[in-house]
Amino acid sequence: MHKEAIYHRAEGSYAYPLSENEIRLILKAKRGDLKRCYVLYDDRYTGPGTEKVAEMTKVCWDTLYDYFQVDIYSDTRRIRYFFYLEGENEHIWYAEGGFSEVRPLEGHFQYPYICKADLFKEPLWTKGAVIYQIFPDRFYNGDKNNDPPGCKKWGEAPDSKSFFGGDLKGVMLKLDYLKELGIDAIYFTPIFESPSNHKYDTTDYYRVDKAFGDLDTLRQLVDEAHQRGIKIILDAVFNHCGKDFWAFKEAVSKGPGSRYWQWFNIYSYPVKVGPNPNYETFANGVYTMPKLMTYNPEVREYLLGVIKYWTKEVNLDGWRLDVANEIDHSFWREFRKIVKDINPQAFILGEVWHDALKWLEGDQFDSVMNYPWRDLVVKFFAKNTIDAEAFDCELARLRMMYTSEVVSGLVNLIDSHDTPRFLTLCKGDKRKLMLAVVFQMTYPGIPMVYYGDEIGMEGDNDPDCRRTMIWEEDKQDRDIYALYKKLISIRHSFPWLANSIYRTWHVDPLKNIYGYIREGKEERIWVLINNSGLYNTLKLPLESGGKVVDLLKGE
Amino acid sequence: MHKEAIYHRAEGSYAYPLSENEIRLILKAKRGDLKRCYVLYDDRYTGPGTEKVAEMTKVCWDTLYDYFQVDIYSDTRRIRYFFYLEGENEHIWYAEGGFSEVRPLEGHFQYPYICKADLFKEPLWTKGAVIYQIFPDRFYNGDKNNDPPGCKKWGEAPDSKSFFGGDLKGVMLKLDYLKELGIDAIYFTPIFESPSNHKYDTTDYYRVDKAFGDLDTLRQLVDEAHQRGIKIILDAVFNHCGKDFWAFKEAVSKGPGSRYWQWFNIYSYPVKVGPNPNYETFANGVYTMPKLMTYNPEVREYLLGVIKYWTKEVNLDGWRLDVANEIDHSFWREFRKIVKDINPQAFILGEVWHDALKWLEGDQFDSVMNYPWRDLVVKFFAKNTIDAEAFDCELARLRMMYTSEVVSGLVNLIDSHDTPRFLTLCKGDKRKLMLAVVFQMTYPGIPMVYYGDEIGMEGDNDPDCRRTMIWEEDKQDRDIYALYKKLISIRHSFPWLANSIYRTWHVDPLKNIYGYIREGKEERIWVLINNSGLYNTLKLPLESGGKVVDLLKGE
Repeated sequence: MHKEAIYHRAEGSYAYPLSENEIRLILKAKRGDLKRCYVLYDDRYTGPGTEKVAEMTKVCWDTLYDYFQVDIYSDTRRIRYFFYLEGENEHIWYAEGGFSEVRPLEGHFQYPYICKADLFKEPLWTKGAVIYQIFPDRFYNGDKNNDPPGCKKWGEAPDSKSFFGGDLKGVMLKLDYLKELGIDAIYFTPIFESPSNHKYDTTDYYRVDKAFGDLDTLRQLVDEAHQRGIKIILDAVFNHCGKDFWAFKEAVSKGPGSRYWQWFNIYSYPVKVGPNPNYETFANGVYTMPKLMTYNPEVREYLLGVIKYWTKEVNLDGWRLDVANEIDHSFWREFRKIVKDINPQAFILGEVWHDALKWLEGDQFDSVMNYPWRDLVVKFFAKNTIDAEAFDCELARLRMMYTSEVVSGLVNLIDSHDTPRFLTLCKGDKRKLMLAVVFQMTYPGIPMVYYGDEIGMEGDNDPDCRRTMIWEEDKQDRDIYALYKKLISIRHSFPWLANSIYRTWHVDPLKNIYGYIREGKEERIWVLINNSGLYNTLKLPLESGGKVVDLLKGE
Repeated sequence: MHKEAIYHRAEGSYAYPLSENEIRLILKAKRGDLKRCYVLYDDRYTGPGTEKVAEMTKVCWDTLYDYFQVDIYSDTRRIRYFFYLEGENEHIWYAEGGFSEVRPLEGHFQYPYICKADLFKEPLWTKGAVIYQIFPDRFYNGDKNNDPPGCKKWGEAPDSKSFFGGDLKGVMLKLDYLKELGIDAIYFTPIFESPSNHKYDTTDYYRVDKAFGDLDTLRQLVDEAHQRGIKIILDAVFNHCGKDFWAFKEAVSKGPGSRYWQWFNIYSYPVKVGPNPNYETFANGVYTMPKLMTYNPEVREYLLGVIKYWTKEVNLDGWRLDVANEIDHSFWREFRKIVKDINPQAFILGEVWHDALKWLEGDQFDSVMNYPWRDLVVKFFAKNTIDAEAFDCELARLRMMYTSEVVSGLVNLIDSHDTPRFLTLCKGDKRKLMLAVVFQMTYPGIPMVYYGDEIGMEGDNDPDCRRTMIWEEDKQDRDIYALYKKLISIRHSFPWLANSIYRTWHVDPLKNIYGYIREGKEERIWVLINNSGLYNTLKLPLESGGKVVDLLKGE
């Protein structure tokens, strides 16, 4: 047995509560090494010897590991446990104190108490929901009066400085379009006052940018959306402000004597606002975006005030957090408390492109934008650089990085304003995009659609991925639209598709065919993806004796 | 190469900041499997290819793994990194995205930003300090007027109900004794009003038990201690109260209509206060200790008020948290904020007998009572059930469970009011105890001495380990006392002994001799422990050309 490959720790994604009386345990072992795996468990305050036994199930595997899982019920909520592992020709005991040849009497793993206050609580409405991402300047121009000067013509190619006049009124006019598509929530990239088209360099956190509208427009938009059952999520840009933010301007003009000098990390005086800035910024030297010192209690109070104001004032349903991984955990803990106190159903979605466990333990975010998942989808569907076997393994690895409740709430996107359009990565081959969307809409989590993907828009990296929305139906790809609409309606019919329960069904790396099974309480969905680009015939047994329906064709 | 044995994750004890510009990375691999190990790292916002390279050092090993470590400096505080691993005949790259044969261009590990607010900040005074634990009823009777009725005679054997009249005045009268011994802080088991001798069943959180004194006695004690440079740590018993706590009494008498009904988890009415209680308690059915529902905001506010009151009112230096692992993390986060706002140098010490990582990430506790360490010390010194090789490996495993800053602040105890006395576990063989104390006082962390250990007191499990302190010098073991005093003074001379830097020097499982090296900036201490019980001669090269002193003999 490869003891050194065996991993369990009573924390993170390896031991977590499902409810006030139930925990889930995961144990990882070298792939193929363990034949059977049991957990022995009991109340922490009973002596050794009386432990109950439960066999663990191998729920998935990746290239290196098998993952064994079991759910344990506890009346008293206080659990100690250890494992019994069976290999081919040997067995061993495993506890917090290490491995042993004999049943351990002490040094057991401990889940000391399932605390109600620490349970992971996601909003209820995200289960089965589909989010739509809008870059407001490019979606629809509903009010010509507020267009910024020098607007380009709708449909022209954007550059990094272009404006097109899209606004909140425009979104309002298109809510019925979104409702028709089946969208449950809109995530807007920033809308507060800022000189840029992307508005990630905020000038005034308390004002809607006048090119987009004003407080009343926003309020009206939220109301109209809510009337249609559509939630609104705004972008919180707190890692940095814009160079024209009043506090920064005052620090620049008054220098070290300014009350706001400590809101930033300015290395020397006078302040050089321009290329090669002498202050800390977003990324390397982006001088238009001075970094905010969120450890400073005054900065904290100011930003949390902003959040409080908007969440209350316009009845928001959530926040997407820009550069969330470069701000203190303690800030996000306070942030969560404030947002959830106002609206317990608000959705908190962090921008973290990598392993985000530290933010997803229940005390900070509900979810993150699932870029590691997108990477796999790009590799498998768009670029064909990994085969069905590798795709399946890597998906399993990602699912096991977080708790099952986190996985069912991750925001799965195939592209965004920060990546090339997926169809462009497919070199325009819409069959590839359509397969990827089938996969996205049947995978655990919350699918997010970047505006225009649903009608076959293309575009390379920023600024090209931020082209204006195509509204003329004859220029839209209606096949793609129909597929999106169909899949979203399927997702609404089976909201349990969001859940993390996912079973590999058929992996054929030779034909590049990949199948998986999704399970609800009473139904089961089989998905079979032919990623070969070729015609294939396949005979596969379905496990059910009941009624079988082709969900895409409705037969 | 055993890829499945390689472990790193950009969190917990595997990636953590040492300062605002420095992180430490740990990588674990199968013991003996890697010949060399490098990390390649750069700013997150620079493209791939320009990474700096640093070789990692194998800092320790246990039976299964080698641990490689490196410290990385970053100007910008934003770090991405990946590893290059060399085995006997192969090499491989390792990043967040997995293993690869070629240098990975994406999917690197990320330490996105070293946030100042999230740095682990322990009190400064604990470095090099020695804590002394007192069970007040048994230490010294300084005021006969407050003795509880039916007190036993000092020196008689205690049972679970005995009282002996020890009090705060008594401790005050013995402060010079403690100062002479070299003690830096006293941790008191509970002193608030309660009907029991141990006082873990609080009746009134706002009152010192009258058998111990009153608010003024406590205030005076703290002042007197502070004058001698001795800190005071009290016991916070918040998992449960006593059955006579007013809120519980009111819930019992008024029933479900009581405002305090929800402070507890009472299953039915009427409430059965007695054996087989119908409410949730500490452990299984300890009816004298009803569990407090700390998720209830009212309970929270009440308990945090208690903490605020005492920390401020008597100028406390810290809290030991009883049954800390059965209370919500969110409670402890609020607790920390309140305590540190009043006294940033307060020490927060949790009672957690097992893996305590979840409480030691900077947002909750400063430290825990290091019972897993004690288990090893008992096995190696007292019971001789593990040899020097296993002892060394298991110590390494424990050190690598937490960050180095946590390790240097763990409270290392060889016994407590909840275990048999160490000397009793040694069957009275004081040589064994003395070796263990040499080890304790030269190991990373904060040594804690349970009252009376320093003069050779014995006692089996509770209540026997809570005998009255022996004050007659002729009944004390003065050899043991002299050794304690010597070792504490050595610890004060070399406060860096608290640091986590620890190097195995000589491991001889055959002779059962164990040596290790501790390193300060300018000095080095070699410790050699002959745990064989036999006379042994050994020739060992010392690495230094400088002056060598025998610290115990002073030669």
